[in-house]
Amino acid sequence: MANEEVILLDFWPSMYGMRVRVALAEKCVNFEYKEQNMVEKSSILLEMNPIYKKIPVLIHNGKPICESLNVVQYIDEVWKDKVTFLPSDPYEKYQAMFWADYVEKVFDTGRKLWNEKGGEKQTRKENYIDTLRMLEGILGDKLYFGGEKFGYLDISLIGICSWFYTYEKFGEFSTEVETPKIIAWMKRCIKRESVSKYVVEPLKVYDFALQIRKHYGIE
Amino acid sequence: MANEEVILLDFWPSMYGMRVRVALAEKCVNFEYKEQNMVEKSSILLEMNPIYKKIPVLIHNGKPICESLNVVQYIDEVWKDKVTFLPSDPYEKYQAMFWADYVEKVFDTGRKLWNEKGGEKQTRKENYIDTLRMLEGILGDKLYFGGEKFGYLDISLIGICSWFYTYEKFGEFSTEVETPKIIAWMKRCIKRESVSKYVVEPLKVYDFALQIRKHYGIE
Repeated sequence: MANEEVILLDFWPSMYGMRVRVALAEKCVNFEYKEQNMVEKSSILLEMNPIYKKIPVLIHNGKPICESLNVVQYIDEVWKDKVTFLPSDPYEKYQAMFWADYVEKVFDTGRKLWNEKGGEKQTRKENYIDTLRMLEGILGDKLYFGGEKFGYLDISLIGICSWFYTYEKFGEFSTEVETPKIIAWMKRCIKRESVSKYVVEPLKVYDFALQIRKHYGIE
Repeated sequence: MANEEVILLDFWPSMYGMRVRVALAEKCVNFEYKEQNMVEKSSILLEMNPIYKKIPVLIHNGKPICESLNVVQYIDEVWKDKVTFLPSDPYEKYQAMFWADYVEKVFDTGRKLWNEKGGEKQTRKENYIDTLRMLEGILGDKLYFGGEKFGYLDISLIGICSWFYTYEKFGEFSTEVETPKIIAWMKRCIKRESVSKYVVEPLKVYDFALQIRKHYGIE
């Protein structure tokens, strides 16, 4: 489509934002990236997502699309002539959507590894590894979550690749030992231009996590 | 489709379950309803929804579909020859999905009106009315949320009609005074056979709420 305006409001370490960046890149959609300050929120973010005030927000020809999984689905439907992310079979589509929602649990247990005070470190680690292992079971021996093709569930999880190092450092474990098939999947994914370009470098994310911990006095 | 087996695992006062019952009725799909005990969960529920162990679960030819909004979307895609719930335009579809997710906030603030101990009753009431009023703004002067047609967002919210009375009794307010357009919408909806048949009678729900409060010692 010509003369389209595609703007992405995003914050660089966000796994939710990375979903959208990778989805746009997979569809070869050019977009203007607008980095957001998540402490002092911009007027454009507040105007475009008044309900949740969160990134990512895709602004397509002036109209906002919020919530990252909604955005990925929207991108899949609007730019149809390239690859498709979601299967057309209703049951396969449902399964991709069900597990993409489950990724929230993985992100959430992962976040607790590095930015939560107190509590039992061992339990946090086990909770995270259990949720990731559940997804590893869904992946099985397939190349990608959807089979031969990089698709919706891969995109939903992809941002975690830039956070593995941070999780490992604070949780004191090896992702490769605990979930080797997930690491093999990651290695296949990062060969894709969309992923290598838009999924952030792990050490940068680790530095970010250290800064946040320092800011909130988490030791 | 002939020779189909459609089973619904459900629990009668559930607003999530009512979404699925109404969706199946709108599509004229015959189904076997299996009431579930939510205290002692059945082996079929645990087998069909091992991740969340929640109702509703639709079992279509032996395959489970979990999470009510997923189920409604699945029903919309599988039984296509009747009405459709979701718009085909990607932006309108996104809007319906965004607000259907928001309904969770309405259900959640509503639940706190009757089953939460302590806290500030006035605040709970205001929180609930604010979220419902937000949806009233989306409805505006339209017949249904999607316009002329009863659709996805209507189905997502429909179960609340059987809970309004309970919310009013414990919150001490009138839904008609606070959100008159929502009540007008409800009156249009209950003229539909799908809604009058499957959305439960408000006094039954109120009795259920009283029993739960008694059981958990909430005064």
